[in-house]
Amino acid sequence: MRYEEFVIEGRNAVLEAFRSGKTIDRVFLLKGCQDSLVLSIARMARKQNTLIQYVPKIRLDQLSVAGKHQGVIAYAAAYEYASVEDMLALAKEKGEPPFLFLLDGIEDPHNLGAIIRTANLSGAHGVIIPKRRAAGLTAVVAKTSAGALNYTPVAKVTNLTAVMEELKREGMWFVCADMDGTLMYDLNLTGPLGIIIGNEGEGVSRLVRERCDMTAAIPMKGDIDSLNASVAAGVLAYEAVRQRMGK
Amino acid sequence: MRYEEFVIEGRNAVLEAFRSGKTIDRVFLLKGCQDSLVLSIARMARKQNTLIQYVPKIRLDQLSVAGKHQGVIAYAAAYEYASVEDMLALAKEKGEPPFLFLLDGIEDPHNLGAIIRTANLSGAHGVIIPKRRAAGLTAVVAKTSAGALNYTPVAKVTNLTAVMEELKREGMWFVCADMDGTLMYDLNLTGPLGIIIGNEGEGVSRLVRERCDMTAAIPMKGDIDSLNASVAAGVLAYEAVRQRMGK
Repeated sequence: MRYEEFVIEGRNAVLEAFRSGKTIDRVFLLKGCQDSLVLSIARMARKQNTLIQYVPKIRLDQLSVAGKHQGVIAYAAAYEYASVEDMLALAKEKGEPPFLFLLDGIEDPHNLGAIIRTANLSGAHGVIIPKRRAAGLTAVVAKTSAGALNYTPVAKVTNLTAVMEELKREGMWFVCADMDGTLMYDLNLTGPLGIIIGNEGEGVSRLVRERCDMTAAIPMKGDIDSLNASVAAGVLAYEAVRQRMGK
Repeated sequence: MRYEEFVIEGRNAVLEAFRSGKTIDRVFLLKGCQDSLVLSIARMARKQNTLIQYVPKIRLDQLSVAGKHQGVIAYAAAYEYASVEDMLALAKEKGEPPFLFLLDGIEDPHNLGAIIRTANLSGAHGVIIPKRRAAGLTAVVAKTSAGALNYTPVAKVTNLTAVMEELKREGMWFVCADMDGTLMYDLNLTGPLGIIIGNEGEGVSRLVRERCDMTAAIPMKGDIDSLNASVAAGVLAYEAVRQRMGK
């Protein structure tokens, strides 16, 4: 299992987990407790958008595993990130051209989970996410991915465009979706391919877009502007699947 | 606009709205108020999974439009449902074979919104949802649909299988997705078509499945069982789009 959820108990342990930058999904605090460490934890939790629940002592006693909660229990997500090299090695091992998803700022954890699920089923070798301004791997993502997080490697990178440059040198091509592009059926998506999915509101950023080799237009027969990000990822990925199957 | 959000103020008006079965998204109640009507409203709100927020009087005064909130303000969703006949008429008017989505128990409002968005952009003439055991049209759905709810008609029906029987007599064919089906590229999805999307956990129910003319398999190249429901709907709908474009 690449993904696990675990319990952290006690004031100092939880505070330390927040300080070290761990992803804390939920924290249970003793109702009415005015201890300064507990108040610090609540402040850090609010800053990181961690779900806070104030509960009576009896509930904490029930949740406690080690029996030393001191009024604080946190649930953290632990995920063993992969490297981009791992993904290329996986493709090589399978004898397939590399097929990756690069997410340029997906913010909604439901979308992130659904995209990892799609990456798994469309036969992709991995998903690359940026470190900043993007959803990380939380319990919601793990749940929405329906188990895919345990199979499909996810890498977290500091600079998405630098990774693209590097992968281009390895022979990969990049495609992003945009209504002004070439109809996706008319593109060749069978080679070593990176599919770029943009942010829910703003789409693909300029620097990433400039490094794309192809811009794919998904046919739009309606009145609104764009598909949901995870649906667009699915439609584009499955066009690549179709072409790779020779259908 | 088919979809609107509006404010209901005052104890009796809000209670009446709950009793008449309106979709109430959120209700603001005066903090600490022990009035029996307010307590009844809180009970009904909990039963219907309406979001309850207890706020001070000054907040209610700010939210109030009519200035007579009596400690209670509710936000309700109003949607003008279409009929299945409207959808067939729309297809006829556009000179296209009817293309509909039938949702067999989609429970997650984010999925419902994303599917309505996909229906709009794939050129479908409407979305049919069942009255029971399914997400209805709430503010979350409206938001997730990114405006599509204002363009693509949605009908709410008591009996999905009865509607299928009726539409079959009108010449429509139905397809559902299942990994044991025929590879979707090998099916003919160009005629008058209804795409069936099953429940997130349990898939398509037996009675609905038995009435399907085709079972489409989306290629699965990974380790897990199924795509997210709204992604599967998108992939299948866009295979129909591709075939209809002759690509």
